[in-house]
Amino acid sequence: MNTPAGMQPPASQRRIVLAERPAGVPREEDFRLETAEVPRPGPGEVLVRTFDLSLDPYVRGTLTGRNLGHPPIAPGDLVPGRAIARVLETGAWVEAETGWQEYAAVPASSLSPLSVPPGVPRTAALGALGTPGLTAYAAVTRLMRPAAGGTVVVSSATGGVGSVAGRLAALAGARTVAIAGGPEKCRVAVERLGYTAAVDRHDPRWTEALAAACPDGVDGYLHMGGGAVLEGVMNLVSPGGRVVLCGLPENANEVGTPASLPAGLIMRTRAVVHGFVVYDHEDLRPDFLREVGGLLAQGRLNPLEDVHEGLESAPAAFRGLMSGRNTGKVIVRVARG
Amino acid sequence: MNTPAGMQPPASQRRIVLAERPAGVPREEDFRLETAEVPRPGPGEVLVRTFDLSLDPYVRGTLTGRNLGHPPIAPGDLVPGRAIARVLETGAWVEAETGWQEYAAVPASSLSPLSVPPGVPRTAALGALGTPGLTAYAAVTRLMRPAAGGTVVVSSATGGVGSVAGRLAALAGARTVAIAGGPEKCRVAVERLGYTAAVDRHDPRWTEALAAACPDGVDGYLHMGGGAVLEGVMNLVSPGGRVVLCGLPENANEVGTPASLPAGLIMRTRAVVHGFVVYDHEDLRPDFLREVGGLLAQGRLNPLEDVHEGLESAPAAFRGLMSGRNTGKVIVRVARG
Repeated sequence: MNTPAGMQPPASQRRIVLAERPAGVPREEDFRLETAEVPRPGPGEVLVRTFDLSLDPYVRGTLTGRNLGHPPIAPGDLVPGRAIARVLETGAWVEAETGWQEYAAVPASSLSPLSVPPGVPRTAALGALGTPGLTAYAAVTRLMRPAAGGTVVVSSATGGVGSVAGRLAALAGARTVAIAGGPEKCRVAVERLGYTAAVDRHDPRWTEALAAACPDGVDGYLHMGGGAVLEGVMNLVSPGGRVVLCGLPENANEVGTPASLPAGLIMRTRAVVHGFVVYDHEDLRPDFLREVGGLLAQGRLNPLEDVHEGLESAPAAFRGLMSGRNTGKVIVRVARG
Repeated sequence: MNTPAGMQPPASQRRIVLAERPAGVPREEDFRLETAEVPRPGPGEVLVRTFDLSLDPYVRGTLTGRNLGHPPIAPGDLVPGRAIARVLETGAWVEAETGWQEYAAVPASSLSPLSVPPGVPRTAALGALGTPGLTAYAAVTRLMRPAAGGTVVVSSATGGVGSVAGRLAALAGARTVAIAGGPEKCRVAVERLGYTAAVDRHDPRWTEALAAACPDGVDGYLHMGGGAVLEGVMNLVSPGGRVVLCGLPENANEVGTPASLPAGLIMRTRAVVHGFVVYDHEDLRPDFLREVGGLLAQGRLNPLEDVHEGLESAPAAFRGLMSGRNTGKVIVRVARG
């Protein structure tokens, strides 16, 4: 095999498989780190090396067979995941479905060339310029459509989606109020991400704090998370306020009270509630890449990343993501380069 | 007093007052028929004679103090209500807030001149050309926006709002599916109101019947009524389907399970759910009167009326309305003429 310097594959590699189907929030013991042979590419396949592995909530659904778009996996199977990788034969940087492993044999036709604006870290392709960013962009620009001077609330405000959504709403002229878990995230939301105000949902009086932060009511709300937050925010929605329910429920842990919306509350507030799934908004991708790429290149959008070192850190990082402990887009650095 | 022939007020009149605040569906005993003096108009007031009294769900809210727009009443107070009436002094036909009585002294400035197209019964002003019609018009044309060939479902399909909404959706080219209570209403829905199909929500297998009637899913849904119907229809909503929740919950009886929408269902269906209150759509009234007036005059809209004879029939008719037993707009004929 003709590979660039430093790109010779080793004889064996590490990979992470599902040990046991998780119940509720995944535990580290639900996964197992294995040593395995580096796969040999079949016809039409190429060997890639994983550099930056993206951890995403949809993976939770594949572990128990509830994900709409991805087939379920079984114990012993490689955990799926998207990554920034390099093709060994050519050295090209690509995005690929590598799974949680150091090397993967993938169909050449499935690769996307990596593309980020000059000066922007390549990992932005997994976050602000990837599916989380498209989610934020479509939810805010197509469905929420914040007006200058209006008040927008974002829950999971410091996560991969929320951190971009809050910024896009602020750039549209809205007052932006973050809902986040804990004082440190609230500090980050205001100081680092530029939210107007932040409310700690772990505070038992968080709804009062939210009401104080939204004296004119809530005109737009991007919801990710549980039912208590949803109902607390809905009580403050202004007539005609636009609410976007984001994320597929089958990707969530199967614990806690399922979020439910009293129909009377929707009527009384005259809210418009949108069910949102990012797959419906692929048509926006060119506009999204141009606009958000421009914001990143100009430094007007500074997304947060929650980077974990080494493939072996993936299970704990995934547990953190599914517990809402991450701040920013969760990335596992599998290799440096 | 200078009154037209036959318009001399009698010495006394009949009126209906609240006897007891209802719990749940109002009973006839919650009201009391009284003989009282005909009121004397004060400064700026005129005496009107009630002809056609409109019974509307909002009145339920005023009986227990939960209505947003109308002050609550107390036992012994006249029951509020809007009617087609005549001004005794001039003989002019008007719409007025008479309450449930034969004669009322009302501010002259509060009267609206009665206006219906030639050939259309005057009672249309209370139904298809009144608030129920505006409700249907705004919900269908502004929020639901049915497309030709799409499938629209209307619950309470034969009521004052539903009977107009179904027709407007059909005229926009949609397939229309009625949900109604009982086989007789289903027959009326199809034969009289022109729905494509009708489903009896009293049938324990109504959701299967609805699924069969909507093989391509539900693109638009106008919801009035209870939570079981709401969830049953939501399960069939197509991606991007538009759902309008109509009616203020404080106008409903305080019994049964409050309607609730699982947030996961909204996300999975990617529905757009609108909370709807007709007061927000007054700006549409001129368009509504022109368009729906035209349809009525051309005989393309034949709204149903559920007419009860005599003021004394109002309590039973109101109980029927709040039990969903009416077919069409409920009107009490207090006087003929």
